[in-house]
Amino acid sequence: MTDIHAQLAKAVGDTNLFAGDAIEDRYRTDLSGILRAEPGFVVRPRTVQEVAAILRAANAEGIAVTTQGGRTGTVKGAVPDKGAIVLSLERMSAIEELDPLSMTITVEAGATLQAVHEAAEAAGFLLPLDLGSRGSATVGGVISTNAGGLRAVRWGVARDMVLGLEAVLADGRIVTGLKKTLKDNAGYDWKHLMIGSEGTLGVVTRATLRLRPIPRTTMTALIATDGFDKVVALLRDLDIDLGGQLSSFEVMWQDFYQMITEANRAKRAPPMPASYPFYVLIEAMGGDPVGDPARFEAALAAAIERGQASDVVIAQSGRERDALWAVREDLMEPMRKLWPMFAFDVSVALGDMAATAERAITAIRGEYPNALILTYGHAGDGNLHFVVGVGDGSPAAEHRVDLAVYSAVAQAGGSISAEHGVGLTKRDYLGFSRTPDEIALMRILKAALDPGNILNPGKILPPSSSLQ
Amino acid sequence: MTDIHAQLAKAVGDTNLFAGDAIEDRYRTDLSGILRAEPGFVVRPRTVQEVAAILRAANAEGIAVTTQGGRTGTVKGAVPDKGAIVLSLERMSAIEELDPLSMTITVEAGATLQAVHEAAEAAGFLLPLDLGSRGSATVGGVISTNAGGLRAVRWGVARDMVLGLEAVLADGRIVTGLKKTLKDNAGYDWKHLMIGSEGTLGVVTRATLRLRPIPRTTMTALIATDGFDKVVALLRDLDIDLGGQLSSFEVMWQDFYQMITEANRAKRAPPMPASYPFYVLIEAMGGDPVGDPARFEAALAAAIERGQASDVVIAQSGRERDALWAVREDLMEPMRKLWPMFAFDVSVALGDMAATAERAITAIRGEYPNALILTYGHAGDGNLHFVVGVGDGSPAAEHRVDLAVYSAVAQAGGSISAEHGVGLTKRDYLGFSRTPDEIALMRILKAALDPGNILNPGKILPPSSSLQ
Repeated sequence: MTDIHAQLAKAVGDTNLFAGDAIEDRYRTDLSGILRAEPGFVVRPRTVQEVAAILRAANAEGIAVTTQGGRTGTVKGAVPDKGAIVLSLERMSAIEELDPLSMTITVEAGATLQAVHEAAEAAGFLLPLDLGSRGSATVGGVISTNAGGLRAVRWGVARDMVLGLEAVLADGRIVTGLKKTLKDNAGYDWKHLMIGSEGTLGVVTRATLRLRPIPRTTMTALIATDGFDKVVALLRDLDIDLGGQLSSFEVMWQDFYQMITEANRAKRAPPMPASYPFYVLIEAMGGDPVGDPARFEAALAAAIERGQASDVVIAQSGRERDALWAVREDLMEPMRKLWPMFAFDVSVALGDMAATAERAITAIRGEYPNALILTYGHAGDGNLHFVVGVGDGSPAAEHRVDLAVYSAVAQAGGSISAEHGVGLTKRDYLGFSRTPDEIALMRILKAALDPGNILNPGKILPPSSSLQ
Repeated sequence: MTDIHAQLAKAVGDTNLFAGDAIEDRYRTDLSGILRAEPGFVVRPRTVQEVAAILRAANAEGIAVTTQGGRTGTVKGAVPDKGAIVLSLERMSAIEELDPLSMTITVEAGATLQAVHEAAEAAGFLLPLDLGSRGSATVGGVISTNAGGLRAVRWGVARDMVLGLEAVLADGRIVTGLKKTLKDNAGYDWKHLMIGSEGTLGVVTRATLRLRPIPRTTMTALIATDGFDKVVALLRDLDIDLGGQLSSFEVMWQDFYQMITEANRAKRAPPMPASYPFYVLIEAMGGDPVGDPARFEAALAAAIERGQASDVVIAQSGRERDALWAVREDLMEPMRKLWPMFAFDVSVALGDMAATAERAITAIRGEYPNALILTYGHAGDGNLHFVVGVGDGSPAAEHRVDLAVYSAVAQAGGSISAEHGVGLTKRDYLGFSRTPDEIALMRILKAALDPGNILNPGKILPPSSSLQ
């Protein structure tokens, strides 16, 4: 028994410490499915004090710690290094308090997004953060990657919903700031440094999240449009016409729409022909069951009038709404065709979306003329997703496609990661969307908070010896 | 001529360097009006490169630098130390670019909020950040204090509108991250560390801000209510009923309403009697000129029905709207009665507002039975303002009132500063709303980014030798 083994056993007890063959496979990877290396230990603390004891021991011994939530990330941010300690928060999943007057919920970091949704909804509240992987993604995970999702156009991303945070620093210091206040300017707002830092600056253990009252109405429509300039104008005009109700604005390129509706044709008929260059799925949520649907229809009629919409289907029931969302979300089966595939999550200014997409697609086709490319995204947030299949899953092919996409993003001054994080997958491209001085500042912060470099080392920041 | 004088002259030119008697009085203080000490120099750079040269020189010589915007802060955050360099950004006030497609505006930090409003409005856009001091407050200032203002309930605070930032670090390094993207998770989001740090971590020189389309309708009403529990319920229910349109929700205690309307009676008749315990000024903004006013009225009728509103006045014209806002904003004359007065800007969870206010008021009256106390705030954000006159402006009296208010805030787990910052005025009370570990983490960040402690030293963080 090594010294660190004994210390970890003391911290969490023998029944929650695993090593060697006793480590289950799920701790070795994330949604990318790539096994990286053999972790030395898996620990499953139950309390923040246990997390602190684990980090104190790891810091003293200089052993890397990779924190895991639901392991539904896609950029290998939660994939451990060889010999590292995997710190799984799965046992810290309590919904601690829902405060209906203050409209907040305080939860442990290992709670799944879905568990928080259910607790909120039972009390009449909405946590607007929603993603496809809600059943496995944890609060700690969505905070560590600053996840965005389907309603960011109205309610923002994870960062915008975190009122209070508790985190453990590399040296085991527990920093607790579990405020329920919407405004707090009493000194540096350190929680924003933890949010989105992918477990490299601290371990998030608990959060207080802002809730909203559940809206009374939900209106959903699919809109076909014949140019991306019209998509941008449609967003601006619907934002005005719907007066604060627009909650989703998802764009799909023709290739995407065609492939998804074709592949799912046995399950459901396509809601409209695949003959249009762009499709937009919108949702609005309001408070007036009598007036809202009429206003929604009027806003869409006005969009047709202005030539921004060529075809419109409005969901008339919950079932029809699900069918429209399925066009955007029922991707698993259709995407098999593209396997082995490379997935991208980039963002650019709204005005640059069309040109950036075109430039990226042209560059990919320059390398691989027969590439299958699905383009879609949360257009309301300038967030583009590309899924690319070139019939070759090799690192060399991935690098060629990466360069094509990230060069287009860099040219528009965009971000290589809108909502998935950097992890290992995008690390070497950080310089495509951050200036050298920004990266230098990130290194200063990392060195200040984790001088021993034990927290998820090698994620986000390329090794210092590299060019960036 | 000292060495630093020569270096500063080289950086900005003789015509923008002032020392000794040549320093105008306005550079010595802020809105608190308290002269602190004699600065050594005032420099007025025109470019970010000049700012960098100033900081390099100051850092090399170990001379303090206090950055100034409009000097409309209230916590002495922009008041220089004796011998310090005042870095005034008044000449860096350009509106550089308004991008209508991306709905962003990029400006230099010295631009006033009003100048940005005017540029945005001329292009059909709204910058939702609005404060009484809009004519003097600068973009750099509102970012450095993370200002909130009158519409935070819908659009958030300054932090929520900053998409991109440029700042100069203590050593003169220029960090540029002027993104126009709404989502960016490519590494640590360092801009959030600068936002709200009151010039102690870097000098903000340029920002890209998110704009919104100008809403088509504005509806304003004053509501009287007979208990604070009803104020909280009213907020929640109006938030639902108005389905995303609620943009202001300002509460006034009876004392406040009575004093302001009495003192301004010669200018305008009070909109309703002063006999109610609480008054709420609400505003909603929407996109439907036909349907919005009716829906607004229906929501208020429902509030009366539920017993949440005892009396309601709806503005029927722009003039009536201004008159309702004057009840909340025309404070200068009435407040003279309280002089010398102490002003507070605290926040607590919505559910704790009434009890916290009552506890603070009781504690102040325990010390000063005849104290005049005005209580009001941005209730939609949990943000309370107290203005207290006890007929004694001495530091000892201020300290007694401070303790009364901040103890009540601490008991509710609130913040001693919602939107004004900490500066010098609240520095010694930081421990009332931050844990020792939070303050220790702030010190780590300050030491990492400003190892020579030249950036606005002594602001926010108490000297290390103090107990906190």
